[in-house]
Amino acid sequence: MKTDVLVIGSSAAGLVVPTVGKRVNPDKKFTVVTKQNKSMIPCGIPYIFGSVGKSDNNILPAEKMYEQTGVEVIHDEVMSVDKNTKVAVLASGESISFEILVFATGSEPVKPKWLNWQDKENVFFVPKDKVYLDEMQQKLSACNSIVTIGAGFIGVEISDELTKTGKKVTLIEKLPNILGLAFDKDISEKVEAVLKERGVNILTGCEVKEITGTTKVEGVKLSDGTVIAADAVIISMGYKPNTQLAKNSGIILNDQGFIKVDEYMRTCDTHIFAVGDCAEKKDFVTGKSAPIMLASTACAEARIAGMNLFKLSVIKTFSGTISIFSTAIGNNGFGVAGMTEAQAIKEGFEIITGTAEGIDRHPGSLSDSHKQYVKLVVAKDSGVILGGAVFGGLSAGELINVIGVAIQNRMDINALFITQVGTHPLLTASPAAYPLIKAVESAIIQLNK
Amino acid sequence: MKTDVLVIGSSAAGLVVPTVGKRVNPDKKFTVVTKQNKSMIPCGIPYIFGSVGKSDNNILPAEKMYEQTGVEVIHDEVMSVDKNTKVAVLASGESISFEILVFATGSEPVKPKWLNWQDKENVFFVPKDKVYLDEMQQKLSACNSIVTIGAGFIGVEISDELTKTGKKVTLIEKLPNILGLAFDKDISEKVEAVLKERGVNILTGCEVKEITGTTKVEGVKLSDGTVIAADAVIISMGYKPNTQLAKNSGIILNDQGFIKVDEYMRTCDTHIFAVGDCAEKKDFVTGKSAPIMLASTACAEARIAGMNLFKLSVIKTFSGTISIFSTAIGNNGFGVAGMTEAQAIKEGFEIITGTAEGIDRHPGSLSDSHKQYVKLVVAKDSGVILGGAVFGGLSAGELINVIGVAIQNRMDINALFITQVGTHPLLTASPAAYPLIKAVESAIIQLNK
Repeated sequence: MKTDVLVIGSSAAGLVVPTVGKRVNPDKKFTVVTKQNKSMIPCGIPYIFGSVGKSDNNILPAEKMYEQTGVEVIHDEVMSVDKNTKVAVLASGESISFEILVFATGSEPVKPKWLNWQDKENVFFVPKDKVYLDEMQQKLSACNSIVTIGAGFIGVEISDELTKTGKKVTLIEKLPNILGLAFDKDISEKVEAVLKERGVNILTGCEVKEITGTTKVEGVKLSDGTVIAADAVIISMGYKPNTQLAKNSGIILNDQGFIKVDEYMRTCDTHIFAVGDCAEKKDFVTGKSAPIMLASTACAEARIAGMNLFKLSVIKTFSGTISIFSTAIGNNGFGVAGMTEAQAIKEGFEIITGTAEGIDRHPGSLSDSHKQYVKLVVAKDSGVILGGAVFGGLSAGELINVIGVAIQNRMDINALFITQVGTHPLLTASPAAYPLIKAVESAIIQLNK
Repeated sequence: MKTDVLVIGSSAAGLVVPTVGKRVNPDKKFTVVTKQNKSMIPCGIPYIFGSVGKSDNNILPAEKMYEQTGVEVIHDEVMSVDKNTKVAVLASGESISFEILVFATGSEPVKPKWLNWQDKENVFFVPKDKVYLDEMQQKLSACNSIVTIGAGFIGVEISDELTKTGKKVTLIEKLPNILGLAFDKDISEKVEAVLKERGVNILTGCEVKEITGTTKVEGVKLSDGTVIAADAVIISMGYKPNTQLAKNSGIILNDQGFIKVDEYMRTCDTHIFAVGDCAEKKDFVTGKSAPIMLASTACAEARIAGMNLFKLSVIKTFSGTISIFSTAIGNNGFGVAGMTEAQAIKEGFEIITGTAEGIDRHPGSLSDSHKQYVKLVVAKDSGVILGGAVFGGLSAGELINVIGVAIQNRMDINALFITQVGTHPLLTASPAAYPLIKAVESAIIQLNK
């Protein structure tokens, strides 16, 4: 068969590219090839083990959106791509010729070779694969004690969700703090306190040596010899880009295995795009390769690709990727945008930080009020805001976007200080003590000393 | 006595100027003169009639903040200021000589001369005066039926709060929609639906002719002759700047009665500042005088004044005031930043609007999910974002700040389209269908047609 635009993958980016692209180019034919019968909402996956109940409640409305916009879907796997003749061959043997190809092949869990996970029942990873996750959930339902290895977002979220369902969960992290790659210690410690209060057993600064048990998990042995008994182990040690097909097709990857792309998500071949977890990101501040894998980033890239498939139309007025994470544990929302203090120092910036704590409603006596802590990381000489973090109530998810937009506009503390924000008793902190602006004020006063 | 900085007024701006100023200039003496024994959180006032319970739960922590930063407070009234000799005279007869003077005298309710409110018991305004409000609340507690005249924020919020406490409330508005000066019709209608469902009787497009009753309120007569029975009437028809003292002191006012100020909140006399409701604002887009009276705006001005009292230190990198409002009725948060569609058209802009509706959590099946509607007002030829509005759940309060920061950076739709936002199932809309970005997409697709 023949199509104008062929998209491989149907997760967030694979959904956004063709639906945006089709709206802009209604006369073009768009085809998606996906291995997944139903694509999961990627960031919702940890919640199928608790709040959301099951994977069926966490399905991307992809089929509906494809249908509504007139995008064709083929449930199959692309086995090879010839970028010169512009033909893809599917597992079924069918060939699809295309004008434009988009890799949205995503990422898969890192499966560390040094750990003996291969030969045991009840060891799980967290792929974006409904069939796998359903089986995993069923098996976990029979387990009482669970060890999660790796306290990134996925590890933290799954541990909390499983604890909510009555499981005894131990979360093990090699770094001194949980979420240690995403947050500075000040925020990580707040999250640890919340998690512990909710019943998660946390072991930080601990290295796992092996998984014990013969055919079935019996526990986890740490490098200091401690053994933690467990019926199941969840390994959440990060993700790696799914780029074997691209590599086999002669598409250039970077040295970390991500597909190299230009500002408009075009690979070495301008008719072939790559978006989302499989595509290389450049850090917004340093321009260096940055292994950022977020659905929100994937969607931002997919919108740019979708708008620019046939001609460059939406022009990139700023370059690079800023990572903006947020999550919540109970009513504690927290997030980070741009660089942490630790990352900035590692990159060689001379920085100051401005921090402030307030309350996310005013008066603070309102029933749903919550402490709100804001931290800004500021380049000392220029005053430019490099990053920020929030720990507070559920409005933290959008407040971190306020900081994200400020960073992307390369605002300095002077500009952010004079920025007007809207406030309301039932929705935000007080205008006289709005922590974001108070954090800026604190940075300015330090700089002027 | 003698002081370095004399601030008149202790509401939001009168709190922020001296506390920021003192942190920057710890060696200077700061003195606040205020008529209020306890200053109210201004935007919290409607809530003392419901959620917050009483005025004592809605007190600005001013005394504490003044004390902590070393600002002296005098409970008295400034009767006259001689700007040449730099001496203020209080009602007590005491004189204070100052180096710098700051007017933070605020605003007071408009009391329309054409309406016969003067001679009747149980007619109320909504001043920022605790003694008045306490008496009003006590009297209202004995009333069953209440008419609110004027459906701006204060009128809407008080009507909802009183309804929550079991009162029968009728809200009367002259314009075709409630909140008609702040929001376009699309959002006003959503708010009307919510208010009606919560039991508020709303009459729009109705003019009040008179308040009936002899010594005590019996009702309100509309211009069409209809009489609405009521035990009390609340008149919420806006506020006017409190600038008589400034005028008497020879400070130049604009033709709407606001104190004229430069970019750094300095009046015609560079040693005299004015901040908050009493100070003139210039619209961010047109530069015209704009009667914006918001505590958040007041605080932004107060921070600039506080930092710049003795030398210009924090430089304004953009000019003008953007109004950012937000509020909530129940779990419905909504807000507006910059120009509405109606305002932009009235100013002569050729505009397009981009709108999108989504859900503020993902998957939408999460228990606290809420529809989220976003509208952007875009200048057609330049693509610059002039304004935006949100109607959704409680995160609307910070989401409108994301739009506010975008507007203040004069972002165009192209820039906002490529902006990265953070998303999370429990905190925000889905990254693939984030309404703010979908609204931008809709605007771009319209423009490219």
